[in-house]
Amino acid sequence: MRILGIDPGSVATGFGVVDSHAGQLTHVAHGTLRPAPHASPAQRLHALHRAISEVVSKHAPDTAVVEQVFVSASARSALTLGQARGVALAAVSEGGRPVLEYSATRIKLAVTGNGRAGKAQVQNMVQRLLGLDRAPARDAADALAAAICHANMGRLGALAQSGFVRARRSTLRVRRAP
Amino acid sequence: MRILGIDPGSVATGFGVVDSHAGQLTHVAHGTLRPAPHASPAQRLHALHRAISEVVSKHAPDTAVVEQVFVSASARSALTLGQARGVALAAVSEGGRPVLEYSATRIKLAVTGNGRAGKAQVQNMVQRLLGLDRAPARDAADALAAAICHANMGRLGALAQSGFVRARRSTLRVRRAP
Repeated sequence: MRILGIDPGSVATGFGVVDSHAGQLTHVAHGTLRPAPHASPAQRLHALHRAISEVVSKHAPDTAVVEQVFVSASARSALTLGQARGVALAAVSEGGRPVLEYSATRIKLAVTGNGRAGKAQVQNMVQRLLGLDRAPARDAADALAAAICHANMGRLGALAQSGFVRARRSTLRVRRAP
Repeated sequence: MRILGIDPGSVATGFGVVDSHAGQLTHVAHGTLRPAPHASPAQRLHALHRAISEVVSKHAPDTAVVEQVFVSASARSALTLGQARGVALAAVSEGGRPVLEYSATRIKLAVTGNGRAGKAQVQNMVQRLLGLDRAPARDAADALAAAICHANMGRLGALAQSGFVRARRSTLRVRRAP
């Protein structure tokens, strides 16, 4: 299963692609999309749509994952974030691919063992989990973390179906990152 | 000059296309885009992008116009509106076409003579200005109003360059709709 994680933002949008097979994660690609800052908002959204569409058609993911947004900032910044997020959701849905959302807490928990981990912890754990030479930039690390979270959910789902998780539940430990 | 007005919304998005030539407005098309309500948010945004792209490629407007948003609602609804708005801005920007924004007050003033006109007044005046058999639905009427506003701005701009508006400024009257 190939998973595309997306971390949309009005200035920079991170993406990350991982393959998940028999409990093994393989890094495929990641990066940060930054539409030209001098362009108009509409042109930047158009460029973002095109860039995400290129990632989608290059890597052909089976599933896309986006972090859920719990809006706490101003309505003005929610509108701006929403514009980039809408473009990302529209672009990754090409071909009817499922798009899943996980909360930031769940993603951080899946990747670091700590639902309140900081950005640097997420970058560090993503690097280790995928065996990368260096930590990805923040937005790309968040996108890879979303993809890893979904890969782990799929694995836990398969384990639950096999009866393994239920039997071992009382002995499960969540390792906390330092 | 062919102008596309867009009134994006999370449930329904209105569009309207008018031609403006030598001070004459000609109605070309209008309608309301409603992605399937049972689809996921991502699928609906994808469907919206595709539908707007079809309108753009069918009518080939020179310019697109979208109403400015002054966010007063909750951050949650601003995020949802932003998602539809981002998709609309990205789709109409295809080919580098300019996308202009006018405030709701300016659009209502241009169409009805009253910056605080109600929805029904806007529908009624759009019908009369374009010589339509019946009033367009609200979202489509708002989209046509945005396009008409820009057509009038272009005309005023041309008049200002010719010196007509400056000379007549003190005698200008704004007709208020009843």
